Amino acid sequence: IEEEIPSSYSFLPGKELVQVYNEKPDKYELVLALDTGDLDRLGKRVSIFREADRTVNIDHHTTNTEFAQLNLVKTNSSAVGEIIYQIIKMMGITIDRDMATCLYVAITTDTGGFRYSNTTPITHQIAADLVNSGVNVADISQIVFETTSLPKIKLMGKVIENLELLENGKLAFVHITDDMLKSTDAGEEDCDGLVNIGRNIEGVEVSVFMRQRGDDEYKINFRSKTYVDVSRIASRHSGGGHVRAAGCTVKGNMNEIKSALIKEIREVL
Amino acid sequence: IEEEIPSSYSFLPGKELVQVYNEKPDKYELVLALDTGDLDRLGKRVSIFREADRTVNIDHHTTNTEFAQLNLVKTNSSAVGEIIYQIIKMMGITIDRDMATCLYVAITTDTGGFRYSNTTPITHQIAADLVNSGVNVADISQIVFETTSLPKIKLMGKVIENLELLENGKLAFVHITDDMLKSTDAGEEDCDGLVNIGRNIEGVEVSVFMRQRGDDEYKINFRSKTYVDVSRIASRHSGGGHVRAAGCTVKGNMNEIKSALIKEIREVL
Repeated sequence: IEEEIPSSYSFLPGKELVQVYNEKPDKYELVLALDTGDLDRLGKRVSIFREADRTVNIDHHTTNTEFAQLNLVKTNSSAVGEIIYQIIKMMGITIDRDMATCLYVAITTDTGGFRYSNTTPITHQIAADLVNSGVNVADISQIVFETTSLPKIKLMGKVIENLELLENGKLAFVHITDDMLKSTDAGEEDCDGLVNIGRNIEGVEVSVFMRQRGDDEYKINFRSKTYVDVSRIASRHSGGGHVRAAGCTVKGNMNEIKSALIKEIREVL
Repeated sequence: IEEEIPSSYSFLPGKELVQVYNEKPDKYELVLALDTGDLDRLGKRVSIFREADRTVNIDHHTTNTEFAQLNLVKTNSSAVGEIIYQIIKMMGITIDRDMATCLYVAITTDTGGFRYSNTTPITHQIAADLVNSGVNVADISQIVFETTSLPKIKLMGKVIENLELLENGKLAFVHITDDMLKSTDAGEEDCDGLVNIGRNIEGVEVSVFMRQRGDDEYKINFRSKTYVDVSRIASRHSGGGHVRAAGCTVKGNMNEIKSALIKEIREVL
């Protein structure tokens, strides 16, 4: 791969088998693309893929473009880890603790710890077998789900400080400005998940997350809980998405954008 | 029961079967105590239990005192929901969606969403069957794990604001004062889980959580991640607990208590 494995995943057994390359890579006989909807997602690795004698594509995205010679796309699998588990089982290979740990991490991260709607009975059956192979559930969960960087927790504090509840507690606004990132030493990756702070508050139906991009541009994420179709609001601002999660990018002053959005959302609350 | 079911659990099917009583309750032929280590945990309900013709105790706590006529204590079960599932299965009853939902909630709450070390292969096998019976995984997880009250999130913001990292980031201090509770409208129940904020920060080995009790008393919780035995520190202050989680109560001024603890913890870091 092109970059080092993130340090938060350095506990994974077998990480020493992953090699980072700087120069033009070798030509390979067989290349497998995992969890890759299309060739663009391979980044610089696309040349390795294109030059290989044989190519395989194992994925679970509904948008997969079947770009390889051999394509195994199972869209009802919660994670590619599930598909790999099934292949290993079909090959008659015994899954040891290290293999189980990697597969478990692949599955638990893709299902949000068995919490997303993609979690199926099969997901849990596979987890049962992996835990039986000696996965350390508590340690892995602590590392994968609980551990936070100091900048991220500080940024979360700032976001909470600025949280606004409107319309009788049914509408929540949170935002991140460049100043907030600077003062907490936080980066783009630390913004992950903060969109949910507003949505998770009891009684909130719509939450709006505004992220500053340069001086007068805001990336806006909408979340709703039970009845508001936020994709409609996003599409009025040339954005899009789903009924419960949508987004758009708007130019202007934060307070003016906010006032306009409050007016629009008030009508559908 | 004596109090209403908390509103956060009002989504549970069958909640209308739970009755809240004010007067002295009736005498019953059969009483089951679930998830109850000893009779004290029954509170006012102990008289119902004592006066019953037949009593049953179904539990998974290692400390269970086997206080009923019939005791089924399975200490290797992650949750009493697991044991009830197994009993229902043995009775040959088909588990419908409503039953599955209640059992799933019982199991997922007691395992921290399949994250605690009590999660076994059997836990996941049962979850597989329950999800197969139509449990709405995403909706339940959102309600049970993600939803927070506004006072709790505001209190979390204050805790983060006051977070201190010492000893090269290996020691974290967080605290809650009565003023912080007042200014956020938070109550005792909103303090739950905030003890982990310090511990969850990357690089922290020991985290100390101080909770003000009156003018000059502090309840102190210690957490450690990999090598410090915090029960030793707690026991120096007439407290106790486990290697990774311990606590004590100390009288005095917050800053003085803090200085003393920093000195003690520095020696073992």
